Amino acid sequence: MESLGHHCGVAGVRAPEPRNVPETLFYMLFSLQHRGQESCGVSWEEGGAWNGRKDLGMVAPVLGSLLGESHPSRLGIGHVRYSTAGGGGVQNAQPLVIECNKGRVALAHNGNISNGALLRRRLTGEGSIFQGSADSELILHLISRSRQEGREGFLREALNTLEGAYSLAMMHEDALVAIRDPSGFRPLYVGKKGGATYVASETCALHAVGPMPYRELRPGEVLVADSEGERSFFLEPRLPPRRCIFELIYFARPDSEVFGQSVHAARTRFGEALADQDSGRLAADVVVPVPDSGNIAAIGYARRAGLPFDFGLARSHYAGRSFILPTKGQRELAARLKLHAVPEVVAGKRVVMIDDSLVRGTTSRIIVNLLREAGAKEVHLRLAAPELKWPCYYGIDIPDRDQLISNRLDPEGIAREVGADSARFLPQDRLLAALGDRDGYCCACFDGRHPFPPAAGGKEGA
Amino acid sequence: MESLGHHCGVAGVRAPEPRNVPETLFYMLFSLQHRGQESCGVSWEEGGAWNGRKDLGMVAPVLGSLLGESHPSRLGIGHVRYSTAGGGGVQNAQPLVIECNKGRVALAHNGNISNGALLRRRLTGEGSIFQGSADSELILHLISRSRQEGREGFLREALNTLEGAYSLAMMHEDALVAIRDPSGFRPLYVGKKGGATYVASETCALHAVGPMPYRELRPGEVLVADSEGERSFFLEPRLPPRRCIFELIYFARPDSEVFGQSVHAARTRFGEALADQDSGRLAADVVVPVPDSGNIAAIGYARRAGLPFDFGLARSHYAGRSFILPTKGQRELAARLKLHAVPEVVAGKRVVMIDDSLVRGTTSRIIVNLLREAGAKEVHLRLAAPELKWPCYYGIDIPDRDQLISNRLDPEGIAREVGADSARFLPQDRLLAALGDRDGYCCACFDGRHPFPPAAGGKEGA
Amino acid sequence: MESLGHHCGVAGVRAPEPRNVPETLFYMLFSLQHRGQESCGVSWEEGGAWNGRKDLGMVAPVLGSLLGESHPSRLGIGHVRYSTAGGGGVQNAQPLVIECNKGRVALAHNGNISNGALLRRRLTGEGSIFQGSADSELILHLISRSRQEGREGFLREALNTLEGAYSLAMMHEDALVAIRDPSGFRPLYVGKKGGATYVASETCALHAVGPMPYRELRPGEVLVADSEGERSFFLEPRLPPRRCIFELIYFARPDSEVFGQSVHAARTRFGEALADQDSGRLAADVVVPVPDSGNIAAIGYARRAGLPFDFGLARSHYAGRSFILPTKGQRELAARLKLHAVPEVVAGKRVVMIDDSLVRGTTSRIIVNLLREAGAKEVHLRLAAPELKWPCYYGIDIPDRDQLISNRLDPEGIAREVGADSARFLPQDRLLAALGDRDGYCCACFDGRHPFPPAAGGKEGA
Amino acid sequence: MESLGHHCGVAGVRAPEPRNVPETLFYMLFSLQHRGQESCGVSWEEGGAWNGRKDLGMVAPVLGSLLGESHPSRLGIGHVRYSTAGGGGVQNAQPLVIECNKGRVALAHNGNISNGALLRRRLTGEGSIFQGSADSELILHLISRSRQEGREGFLREALNTLEGAYSLAMMHEDALVAIRDPSGFRPLYVGKKGGATYVASETCALHAVGPMPYRELRPGEVLVADSEGERSFFLEPRLPPRRCIFELIYFARPDSEVFGQSVHAARTRFGEALADQDSGRLAADVVVPVPDSGNIAAIGYARRAGLPFDFGLARSHYAGRSFILPTKGQRELAARLKLHAVPEVVAGKRVVMIDDSLVRGTTSRIIVNLLREAGAKEVHLRLAAPELKWPCYYGIDIPDRDQLISNRLDPEGIAREVGADSARFLPQDRLLAALGDRDGYCCACFDGRHPFPPAAGGKEGA
Repeated sequence: MESLGHHCGVAGVRAPEPRNVPETLFYMLFSLQHRGQESCGVSWEEGGAWNGRKDLGMVAPVLGSLLGESHPSRLGIGHVRYSTAGGGGVQNAQPLVIECNKGRVALAHNGNISNGALLRRRLTGEGSIFQGSADSELILHLISRSRQEGREGFLREALNTLEGAYSLAMMHEDALVAIRDPSGFRPLYVGKKGGATYVASETCALHAVGPMPYRELRPGEVLVADSEGERSFFLEPRLPPRRCIFELIYFARPDSEVFGQSVHAARTRFGEALADQDSGRLAADVVVPVPDSGNIAAIGYARRAGLPFDFGLARSHYAGRSFILPTKGQRELAARLKLHAVPEVVAGKRVVMIDDSLVRGTTSRIIVNLLREAGAKEVHLRLAAPELKWPCYYGIDIPDRDQLISNRLDPEGIAREVGADSARFLPQDRLLAALGDRDGYCCACFDGRHPFPPAAGGKEGA
Repeated sequence: MESLGHHCGVAGVRAPEPRNVPETLFYMLFSLQHRGQESCGVSWEEGGAWNGRKDLGMVAPVLGSLLGESHPSRLGIGHVRYSTAGGGGVQNAQPLVIECNKGRVALAHNGNISNGALLRRRLTGEGSIFQGSADSELILHLISRSRQEGREGFLREALNTLEGAYSLAMMHEDALVAIRDPSGFRPLYVGKKGGATYVASETCALHAVGPMPYRELRPGEVLVADSEGERSFFLEPRLPPRRCIFELIYFARPDSEVFGQSVHAARTRFGEALADQDSGRLAADVVVPVPDSGNIAAIGYARRAGLPFDFGLARSHYAGRSFILPTKGQRELAARLKLHAVPEVVAGKRVVMIDDSLVRGTTSRIIVNLLREAGAKEVHLRLAAPELKWPCYYGIDIPDRDQLISNRLDPEGIAREVGADSARFLPQDRLLAALGDRDGYCCACFDGRHPFPPAAGGKEGA
Repeated sequence: MESLGHHCGVAGVRAPEPRNVPETLFYMLFSLQHRGQESCGVSWEEGGAWNGRKDLGMVAPVLGSLLGESHPSRLGIGHVRYSTAGGGGVQNAQPLVIECNKGRVALAHNGNISNGALLRRRLTGEGSIFQGSADSELILHLISRSRQEGREGFLREALNTLEGAYSLAMMHEDALVAIRDPSGFRPLYVGKKGGATYVASETCALHAVGPMPYRELRPGEVLVADSEGERSFFLEPRLPPRRCIFELIYFARPDSEVFGQSVHAARTRFGEALADQDSGRLAADVVVPVPDSGNIAAIGYARRAGLPFDFGLARSHYAGRSFILPTKGQRELAARLKLHAVPEVVAGKRVVMIDDSLVRGTTSRIIVNLLREAGAKEVHLRLAAPELKWPCYYGIDIPDRDQLISNRLDPEGIAREVGADSARFLPQDRLLAALGDRDGYCCACFDGRHPFPPAAGGKEGA
Repeated sequence: MESLGHHCGVAGVRAPEPRNVPETLFYMLFSLQHRGQESCGVSWEEGGAWNGRKDLGMVAPVLGSLLGESHPSRLGIGHVRYSTAGGGGVQNAQPLVIECNKGRVALAHNGNISNGALLRRRLTGEGSIFQGSADSELILHLISRSRQEGREGFLREALNTLEGAYSLAMMHEDALVAIRDPSGFRPLYVGKKGGATYVASETCALHAVGPMPYRELRPGEVLVADSEGERSFFLEPRLPPRRCIFELIYFARPDSEVFGQSVHAARTRFGEALADQDSGRLAADVVVPVPDSGNIAAIGYARRAGLPFDFGLARSHYAGRSFILPTKGQRELAARLKLHAVPEVVAGKRVVMIDDSLVRGTTSRIIVNLLREAGAKEVHLRLAAPELKWPCYYGIDIPDRDQLISNRLDPEGIAREVGADSARFLPQDRLLAALGDRDGYCCACFDGRHPFPPAAGGKEGA
């Protein structure tokens, strides 16, 4: 689909003896790169001091120099960040590192605090200053302001004021602290290997270190790993869990497990459910995924429908962000450079074109046109998700409502606009049925039932 | 498969009236980027003068600045270059542009002149100087040395001394000249749109301009496009055509046509032929391609074998060349960063792992190991090409013979070395049968039957 | 002399109507580049929003892109920063911009708060968090913490707790605020042109805007320029003024006025005083300055002594920081690349070699050797300052005491160590007499009489 | 003065045993940086192979990486290049390295071949091809074309066809060859240290290696240094020597010797001659040089006239090429950023402002204005050279005749245009008298008496 604002990813390591923790964090963050490409950073302990490196840019250019260096360290955290245009300055790059009356604290945050603007006003009223717009800074102020002295005490006091989504990796003194909000919006996993503790947003970042046993942190869990080992305590839940359904639809990497689900398996089942819906109602010759977002759902669709799956669209490996195309005509050409239709696969065929979801519809229009140019006889657009209609206050950057095609048009209208012969979505009940878990997911971007109300200015993601 | 030295790609434009030819060449070269990533360049006419831009690096960074600029031009050519380590200086970047007694000439070359070293010795004996090692410089000297005055005359005289592979895009005075060697080793296509002539190594570069009618230049054809239109003459053939089979196996982009064949169709048939060979002899659960080189053959295999195709290996979109991993242990980790196995697909399964061909076998060993770690019960390696055993003197950079795994081990030995349960190649006769054309291909890298003998030092590709 | 840690420079603009304030700040900061080369930045109002740009690096590369852009603005401040090795991260680049209960505040600081560490401990005890080590962050916390609501009130409350040196440029709401500490350690000037107010550390930054009337802020003065014009109030003095003598000796640019003195005139008089001291005691042939630090004192010396002044040492214009020389032998060669002796001037001569001051003595040793190689018969080293023996707590980065050559050796010992025939300093009383003002200067780096005691960790400059 | 197109500089080393020749060449070229800033390069022998590095840019960024590397080598040459706008591509960067029937040859050239266009036409007629516009390529063709086999033979044959200026550093087989044209237009020195031979355009590049005995090559001398030692032969002179007077006026570094003259001494005498001319005719208070081009002549003038010398103009150390100012108003500001007048020195004074020469006059106008703004009562412009009126065909890039202010205005008119109270030049006979050598100099840019006629297109410098 069209690129939807990813949120962020976090990682952390606590080892019993010094090893090259920044290098390990490099590998983990590299595996989480799909969760944020705007900035990245790491902080780590080394010989008692805390060091850090962070900047705008991707993991390889910003942190690659760490690979040739020696940094014996027991503790470190890292972050990849996506951010909306306005909030993407280097001052918001994470981890944030501060000195306060609780000692040194470093923090990396994935999620969005929906009552953040309200809390900021309260804190500035009490004399706090804010240098950036990241929720991390807000959380650090709350920690510093707490009158509780012990770590469990001040974390409980600080975090209980928060509403919304937060998966956190934190350094405090000699401890790695991993925190998942009580609603469990964002995933957070912990693994163990060679005596060390590893935490990461997705299991693929643990695989990058090597095979290891792992488990998901429970909603509300605060895991502390320090020289005395690991232990957990739990924040009070205020609502039942609300896992973000978009992690399974789009964000997470297919080889990851999130929310206890194989991402690959979930997407295959979404594709199967789409095929069931078309069963007996659509005659077609070939199933073609939009690469790579529609790949797995297309496998599921083709298998269930008994239709051939084929690579009717190819994607250039070399089309990155490295050049900018100033005019509209050039942008049309740019789409041509990034995707190409394969005549051999689609010429004279009735094509089922599978994507994961639909945002503005502009890219779909271009792709349908490419398929037509390559000779497709019919093009049927199928989306492995419901119609996207609402904003998210918990970390996903969805365009304004009036830019969402499903707020303007019904499926028939969408088919007309993108030039397809038909268009069909996967309804929310079928989606959840395919997961075998009708509760416990936040589907607010589809149904508008937001578990926490937004605060003014609360859309800023992390 | 492991990266094999791509050769090069060429493009050219001749328009009846001034338009932004360098911008068009950018789009065309961008689409040929898979044929060479070391350097690239364009030359173009503008207001009677000839301009150029070339450097080490890929198309987007080196030539992207052209997109914002205005360059009214009627004529231009471009080049992407792969080169072996030693010969990769910027002085070998193409097009080469010279002044000589035939006027100004710009030249871009794809292929390798197998008697190049011999011709160089002859030319220096006559007083010529060589600034680089590219065959283009050699060809330009031959043109300058010719006593024939007319363009057809001096081209015939110069080119008739060459042995080996050359597809050329050339500017001479106000003409675009496109030349394909009499053996037709490398592809070269010409298309027509809006009164302009476009030439390119593959049809995908013509698609980048937009839909247009096109045809392949015939072996030995010299096409001239100038203000008086297009016309062709033909060089004398010395041998029957010898199209490079590796263009279809690996080099060309799947949405291209080369040698009159759909690349996608050819690779699908190679996969089907592989499946026929296993028919009744192999029990398996799932067909998994090595992304992306094995994708299409895996589709063909799965379909013919009646087995499910699935994405059991995923590839990171962010693993480019931008960081360097100094130690061997880090390189192991690097492979982990670039590819990941999907447990959902392979755990407990008998996996057929499809790749296009096998060079050294080192990457295959790592991939098999990833599949085993993810729980695969059996792994059967299938290669959609014969065993690679010989060097190429016509433009493909194949490692030394003793590094080719098929010169050291038979398929059973290979299976043992990479950790697979079995390994099997597609024999040359089945490969050619799948193409429906048993003649007209050069298979020297498989069978050692080289159409032209190598000259000393003649391995340098372009 | 050897490079001594410069401190920082500040600039600010308040215009009655929108104009390109960031561009003007570029010119002003460019003129203050000699006061800090590690990082720089600007903040400015534009259409009600506040924008900024800052990074590690010099003014031209970091801020040069501002010159081609349009930024209609009424208000802006800027900063150039020198910092010691440890504290030079981009997080300390200024201006710092915050949101707090006083509204938005941007701050740029030149100086050093000598009780900074103590104040930080107090503030963290009250719940404040610190992201960096710059004094600016400290001052902003004090402003935010103040219970006074009006600008004059909270500034008085915040600033009265500070000890040490601070010249500040500040944006608050629609006002430019310029503040000079009650001791007047660092210079700060204000000028008026075309209805706009300009503030800067030195007058040379005002000249960069064009000729304008200007005056120095008085110690303790707080100048506010907003839509209602300019007005000042004054902080309580706690000590008599203590202007930094090193501004006149070394830091300020010769065409500037600081502390009401022409820098060029002051240095000329220092040279004359040196000559008076040698009068009748030294026979010499030529006066040669160490370029460019000794240039002006050498003019004064030569004129008073009646000796010829000549360029016996030349300096390469191309020796920047752009290459790094790893070994000691290479560093010797590097000095040779940066300075060269002119045989024509010094061969067979008794040379008076003039520099502004002496820190470690290592560069002087190399220069004396260059003069000897070029044939100098005698070399007499003269320093236009007293012997440097003590640290500075107010913004100058002086090496540790045991690295200062004057703590190890007397002038005779110094002459021996650097290879000179004699070495002589300008005593503090003669220095002050040359200024015609024996009071009102801080000479603590010479005499150890520090007006404010250092706090632990208080050496960090800004 | 305003920047006049420098030409180029060459260097070479031949050592009896392997040492780090590329590093030594770095130091030598760094010292010749003032002779060319557009591109630079080195070639060197290492273990029998020839390596090289060259690119657009200055010595430190382009070649600085050599300093950390090990390159045992016996032989190498280097080049710094200035070039006119059109001819500055990287393909013209030197040294040029070729293979030909004389073996491998590398060449670096300083000067300009005035019959170059004619020779090119002859060579292309015979089948040679030209990839660039540098005279080096031309000379290499002539060498390759020679039927003489021995080195002396083919060099004599090749060089005898050349007219104009050439100082060459060349590698051929294991020999360093240094060549100065029979007219001796450009300087070329050879030194000996530690058994090794060093050649360079100016002695300052020999000083960069360390003190050593040296001598100037005689006009027409060809020096060969190889494993058998050093020996020379001489080309036939066709005209008496014609040393370029501008080397002494402007190009060469003050600590260099060129043409057997101390550059510093020559410029001092030019200043004295200027003062003699004003003697009794001009009442003034202070002599101020335009930094740094007027520095030394101002010393001579002040001393002879009995007037004080002072730094009334200061130059920013930070004003390099790193930012570009798009509009005219910004260029005015740029001049302000680069130079500043010191009121203390010039206010209320009658100033003699000394520069080395006058080209277009635009910068002088800005400087005079700065002096007036700073309070100068009178400004008298004095130039230590005759009026510049003619082009140069031997390597100096002088603007078109109609841009030279002395072709438009007499000294009175010039004074009016730049805003000075008077303007006066040093006539050619006084200039030559100051050198004590009225013959042997080329003054064609002043008197139009060119020793060799220009060939069409012959202005290209090197």
